[in-house]
Amino acid sequence: MELWYTEKHTDSVKFSIQVDRQLYSGQSEFQRIDVFDSKEFGRFLTLDGYMMLTEKDEFIYHEMMVHVPMAVHPAVKRVLIIGGGDGGAIRELVRYPTVEHIDLVEIDELVVEVCKKHLPQTACCFNDPRVHLHFEDGLRYIRHCEDEYDLIIVDSTDPFGPGEGLFTKEFYGNCYKALKADGIMVNQHESAFYADDAIAMQRAHKRIVQSFLISKVYQAHIPTYPSGHWLFGFASKKYHPTADLNGVKWNALGLKTRYYNTRLHAGCFALPNYVEEMLRDAE
Amino acid sequence: MELWYTEKHTDSVKFSIQVDRQLYSGQSEFQRIDVFDSKEFGRFLTLDGYMMLTEKDEFIYHEMMVHVPMAVHPAVKRVLIIGGGDGGAIRELVRYPTVEHIDLVEIDELVVEVCKKHLPQTACCFNDPRVHLHFEDGLRYIRHCEDEYDLIIVDSTDPFGPGEGLFTKEFYGNCYKALKADGIMVNQHESAFYADDAIAMQRAHKRIVQSFLISKVYQAHIPTYPSGHWLFGFASKKYHPTADLNGVKWNALGLKTRYYNTRLHAGCFALPNYVEEMLRDAE
Amino acid sequence: MELWYTEKHTDSVKFSIQVDRQLYSGQSEFQRIDVFDSKEFGRFLTLDGYMMLTEKDEFIYHEMMVHVPMAVHPAVKRVLIIGGGDGGAIRELVRYPTVEHIDLVEIDELVVEVCKKHLPQTACCFNDPRVHLHFEDGLRYIRHCEDEYDLIIVDSTDPFGPGEGLFTKEFYGNCYKALKADGIMVNQHESAFYADDAIAMQRAHKRIVQSFLISKVYQAHIPTYPSGHWLFGFASKKYHPTADLNGVKWNALGLKTRYYNTRLHAGCFALPNYVEEMLRDAE
Amino acid sequence: MELWYTEKHTDSVKFSIQVDRQLYSGQSEFQRIDVFDSKEFGRFLTLDGYMMLTEKDEFIYHEMMVHVPMAVHPAVKRVLIIGGGDGGAIRELVRYPTVEHIDLVEIDELVVEVCKKHLPQTACCFNDPRVHLHFEDGLRYIRHCEDEYDLIIVDSTDPFGPGEGLFTKEFYGNCYKALKADGIMVNQHESAFYADDAIAMQRAHKRIVQSFLISKVYQAHIPTYPSGHWLFGFASKKYHPTADLNGVKWNALGLKTRYYNTRLHAGCFALPNYVEEMLRDAE
Repeated sequence: MELWYTEKHTDSVKFSIQVDRQLYSGQSEFQRIDVFDSKEFGRFLTLDGYMMLTEKDEFIYHEMMVHVPMAVHPAVKRVLIIGGGDGGAIRELVRYPTVEHIDLVEIDELVVEVCKKHLPQTACCFNDPRVHLHFEDGLRYIRHCEDEYDLIIVDSTDPFGPGEGLFTKEFYGNCYKALKADGIMVNQHESAFYADDAIAMQRAHKRIVQSFLISKVYQAHIPTYPSGHWLFGFASKKYHPTADLNGVKWNALGLKTRYYNTRLHAGCFALPNYVEEMLRDAE
Repeated sequence: MELWYTEKHTDSVKFSIQVDRQLYSGQSEFQRIDVFDSKEFGRFLTLDGYMMLTEKDEFIYHEMMVHVPMAVHPAVKRVLIIGGGDGGAIRELVRYPTVEHIDLVEIDELVVEVCKKHLPQTACCFNDPRVHLHFEDGLRYIRHCEDEYDLIIVDSTDPFGPGEGLFTKEFYGNCYKALKADGIMVNQHESAFYADDAIAMQRAHKRIVQSFLISKVYQAHIPTYPSGHWLFGFASKKYHPTADLNGVKWNALGLKTRYYNTRLHAGCFALPNYVEEMLRDAE
Repeated sequence: MELWYTEKHTDSVKFSIQVDRQLYSGQSEFQRIDVFDSKEFGRFLTLDGYMMLTEKDEFIYHEMMVHVPMAVHPAVKRVLIIGGGDGGAIRELVRYPTVEHIDLVEIDELVVEVCKKHLPQTACCFNDPRVHLHFEDGLRYIRHCEDEYDLIIVDSTDPFGPGEGLFTKEFYGNCYKALKADGIMVNQHESAFYADDAIAMQRAHKRIVQSFLISKVYQAHIPTYPSGHWLFGFASKKYHPTADLNGVKWNALGLKTRYYNTRLHAGCFALPNYVEEMLRDAE
Repeated sequence: MELWYTEKHTDSVKFSIQVDRQLYSGQSEFQRIDVFDSKEFGRFLTLDGYMMLTEKDEFIYHEMMVHVPMAVHPAVKRVLIIGGGDGGAIRELVRYPTVEHIDLVEIDELVVEVCKKHLPQTACCFNDPRVHLHFEDGLRYIRHCEDEYDLIIVDSTDPFGPGEGLFTKEFYGNCYKALKADGIMVNQHESAFYADDAIAMQRAHKRIVQSFLISKVYQAHIPTYPSGHWLFGFASKKYHPTADLNGVKWNALGLKTRYYNTRLHAGCFALPNYVEEMLRDAE
């Protein structure tokens, strides 16, 4: 069956995955949701036609989003996840016994339902007693939070459509306020190679820098995202992402990971010059 | 004009670039050579239909292939490049005044001619008096070299077709022999994400390990190569790629680079766990 | 959503339809069955990945398969359809009050079920009391028929996979035997433009000519079939497809059609020279 | 080499041909001109990215454009071709010894040059002494012609870009004026299957009907044109396209053709009902 899902990385660059069959297609109040089966990437989820995750490489994204801040902050107890309805960030978080409370604020309840049914690999841990689901707009939710979280994970879609508000100055400011005095925020930070993505990335960085004293960017190799070179933001009131890494302690936890390790933790903050320059230009 | 060049990264994954027009198409004794113009990646070269380089991201490959060993070895004077007919590795090498002699052994003279005409961005420095071109089989050339080079750069195509011999045990053994007592060999080392590529990568690693005491792998983000996560091999008789990095000295050279920097030098050897495991399995 | 169904018309020609969503995917004992929704062609059915019919242009195929013989034969009472599990040929046939009995022999019961559910436009008339379904191999069914039918419609898939037997000399010979003394057989006859299709077409023609005295080929414009130029066979023991056309009688029936008309009936047997030559070569 | 030329037949239907290599790409004052080599269709020409002709199926278009009117009109001596810079219509016309004078009015001289060099199969007969080339706007040229031609062939591109004016009421009116009292005009008439094409087709038909008493449409199977079902207009002051066909005389000429024949001549004016209705709606 010659059935291909294509994502246009730019107007003139296409990344295409042969689909074995479509498992789900639905329209929520917020977006179109589709799930496909493929030979190369296993099951994958798209929102409004954009690739969100695949069974084969989602571990990279979710490990890098969760373990980087967890290996820096000495005692994360309360976590807020904005977005993340696929459950991947939760899956990594609940592996830490010291985490006591996780609020997940996902605007679209249907995403969670669809992932529970079709993507059990990520949506495996919503039943953990520490997890509390809130189906509402993250932008609104965060306005009323103050000094509450050790860690905020902004696991958003791209900066248009439902995810747009999660890239605003107001939102980052409210995240700052919602964090405790030594809190950390990580966010999916788009990419730097293609021109339009780079502009969105610079804009996000500029706005985060305005709120947070410590604001660094790290990278991972994610084959199904545009250019394969994906960025994350690490913003903090107190901790430095590499100077305050406690590798010995993290390794003592004995968590088995497939991408993340503490050597790579330091390495992933060493960005190419052209990315460093873009970030400096935005600051 | 809807004209698209497609590279199949696997049987069920395609990466496609819209082409503005084709500038050259020819058949040498060894392979088919094509040059295209594209909006997103500028001019690009394919050999036997496989993407070799694009104007937009070749700097990543060539900087990582050259500056990593050059920042480790204290005094590179004589360099051998196997392959590399596009001239990109030469361009980076001739920036070092201490380099005295560069032998480039390219099996296909037509590649050099085509690149000189159509890819002046990389093929800019063949006229440097230190550069000596040898149009012959690298596998054969190296058999007669002994204790001659400080640095060997294996800038090969993929391990099939004309490039096949450059991934054999015999070849790596001859590289060892051709190097001086403190020589370094770097090689393009394929990638680890897609299954077939990973097998080729493991096979190459296994063979290098058999010849070299120090054999490490490093990575870069190259958007137009399969998965975007490309690997390089660093094999050495004496120097360790990060412990022996002399960052202060390299930075004092004042070379302007767009990807490489000495912070990233250390980071790029910190591989994801799943890649580390593949390498261990191969050793 | 950039989701495209592609049919390779040859190794180097692709016809692609953007899919809105997939409605069904299943595997029967005989073949894979898929149903899709598309903007341009509405709903469409594929078997083993090959395009069978679309809502938008199936009327052409089914009208041309049924009304051509029905406008020639003076009194069709008993009809045998081999294949045709989508119900399109039945839909056209049951419009004739003089037809008394229709046997439909479809090897794959799941095709009928899927079409009833997802393609009601064609699968609308299986409940007509004159229709008798037989879920078995047409090749075997016809062996035991003799002097029984006025009209046989061979509504097969392509000559490989489940449809292969319906292009054999034995099968056409049995059709001849199953027909009454003035019976007509029509069959889907592949196409003539692309080389591989032309070979299959010539082979079918050669075999039919060996059984039937009168054996002509007619054509229609079907946009979703390879080359858009599709052929049908008209084989008969007695009637000539144009000389024996009774246009006045057919028009008096008052059947509303969107493609077929009696002027076109004569025209569709006037083939291009290159097709005529291929047929002569095969005879 | 995975290099594919794609024509979008609609926003959601693509027809793609694998290209072996590009032979020419240039920009004239009027349009972009490209020539490609392909395995399936041989050499082909595109203007502004739209498929104009391929070596493999251009015979259909050119035979149907020329021989249909030539088999009707009893004595064509002076012919005007508007467009047709590829030379295909000329090639068919110069086979008639009775033709005395051919004016070809092509707006873009570069088209003729490129075809002479790269498409000798069509551009073979510009040197015939009866052929007179005029590189100017057909719309303007025809304004000053009166009672001059036996046959006008409007071999235009699609009704946008340089070809736009050749679909106007003014243009058809001037063609009428330029024809002798028993003159015939044929024109490429777009197609009826896809909605946008059908609108253009209806508009052209409406305008022709306003000028010509006899205005009929005929069809051919052209695999590389959208839907494969292409239409031509036959407009005349005196002759009816089928009633006045002199088949005996045409066949006596002994012209060898690959698509056209006089049986098919009658058949090609028998249109499907849905096309007939569109034409009636437009009249």
